[in-house]
Amino acid sequence: MEFNINKHISGQFNDELEQIRNDVLKMGGLVEQQLTNALNAVNKSDRDLAKQVLESDYLVNKMDVQIDEDCTRIIAKRQPAASDLRLVLAIIKTITDLERIGDEAKRIAKVALESFNKTQQEFLVSMDGMGRKAIAMLHDVLDAFARMDVDAAFDVHKADKELDREYEGIARQLMTHMMEDPRSIPKIMDVLWSVRSLERIGDRCQNISEYVIYFVKGKDVRHTSEDDIKQNILS
Amino acid sequence: MEFNINKHISGQFNDELEQIRNDVLKMGGLVEQQLTNALNAVNKSDRDLAKQVLESDYLVNKMDVQIDEDCTRIIAKRQPAASDLRLVLAIIKTITDLERIGDEAKRIAKVALESFNKTQQEFLVSMDGMGRKAIAMLHDVLDAFARMDVDAAFDVHKADKELDREYEGIARQLMTHMMEDPRSIPKIMDVLWSVRSLERIGDRCQNISEYVIYFVKGKDVRHTSEDDIKQNILS
Repeated sequence: MEFNINKHISGQFNDELEQIRNDVLKMGGLVEQQLTNALNAVNKSDRDLAKQVLESDYLVNKMDVQIDEDCTRIIAKRQPAASDLRLVLAIIKTITDLERIGDEAKRIAKVALESFNKTQQEFLVSMDGMGRKAIAMLHDVLDAFARMDVDAAFDVHKADKELDREYEGIARQLMTHMMEDPRSIPKIMDVLWSVRSLERIGDRCQNISEYVIYFVKGKDVRHTSEDDIKQNILS
Repeated sequence: MEFNINKHISGQFNDELEQIRNDVLKMGGLVEQQLTNALNAVNKSDRDLAKQVLESDYLVNKMDVQIDEDCTRIIAKRQPAASDLRLVLAIIKTITDLERIGDEAKRIAKVALESFNKTQQEFLVSMDGMGRKAIAMLHDVLDAFARMDVDAAFDVHKADKELDREYEGIARQLMTHMMEDPRSIPKIMDVLWSVRSLERIGDRCQNISEYVIYFVKGKDVRHTSEDDIKQNILS
């Protein structure tokens, strides 16, 4: 009988962990949608879509607070150890990064509310490729989180370098344009801040990939080189 | 006898929590020093000091990993509840923000390694006032953390608005200068990124102030307006 009760309790605990994991994926899906909408709003000068992003941000924040509370409750009530504890701590950190990605999406959406001339609008469109890469990184890291797949997580980790390179290229182009047409500086700066936001989103996806590796491998790889991760932790 | 043992265990637990709190303050002191050195390096074009900041960053990262591990161990071993658990979770989040403030200090220090002409150097010096405000915010929030003083934490929370205003002013000045002297754009952009770093440091100090309030009041105030915090949580 006692065995059954324990099993039941343990089963409940598993259900709770499963629920929280699903909530994280739901939050991640919402953030991905926010980012996609923000970039589409910028790309198509769609003010309504931009406003929608700004108005939906509170939903991301609400999920952040809710999941954080659930995690704290589960630690207090279930006293998880080993990999269960690692999962809960990885989730607490993941949602912080997801929430900040939501903030960056909001910053990008705000740019879509401004007016740009044709040349400036072309620069906005030119960040579309980088935007799609950032969305892909977010999508892939959420997928790695869902399957707790370290190799997929490591792929996202490596992809950040590419996004950084793309950022450097676009930033250089924008600076050149500012030098050629100084009157455009305030508008081009708005584009530059958005490109910077995308670069930051890449960093945050990389953070999440590190939490997935931490959960599965039990090793904190945050300040570890990619060669070290590959040779000493993933192999 | 059992009572004594429990008391002993509990005493040990308190020692462990105290030790971790001290480590956080030590880490905070180191980050404050890094930021101060970075700003002095920029202000006085002191390359050696800038290099020292870059070379010391690993110490901040090391403390981040160490304290995070200690927190995980303490949760697994001591199964803290209520305010003990809140303290450990607040610490886990605080050190993440401290580590990122260290990263911003590194970014600022890198600027001191470049060469600027006299006018550009004057712009760098003009960010000194904002820099000192950011240092004060960091100092004050660490102090609020040390004493777990919610009112002091709330003062830091409010101070961020002032830093944001100062950021807007300096950013506008820098953009005006770029329009007047387009050749200076790349250099002025370096200054602008540094000013942006200071603005971000303010945000992170605000985050830490929220963790102090969370620990003491048991309420997550991250997405709460200052009026709400004042009327419903601190009073």
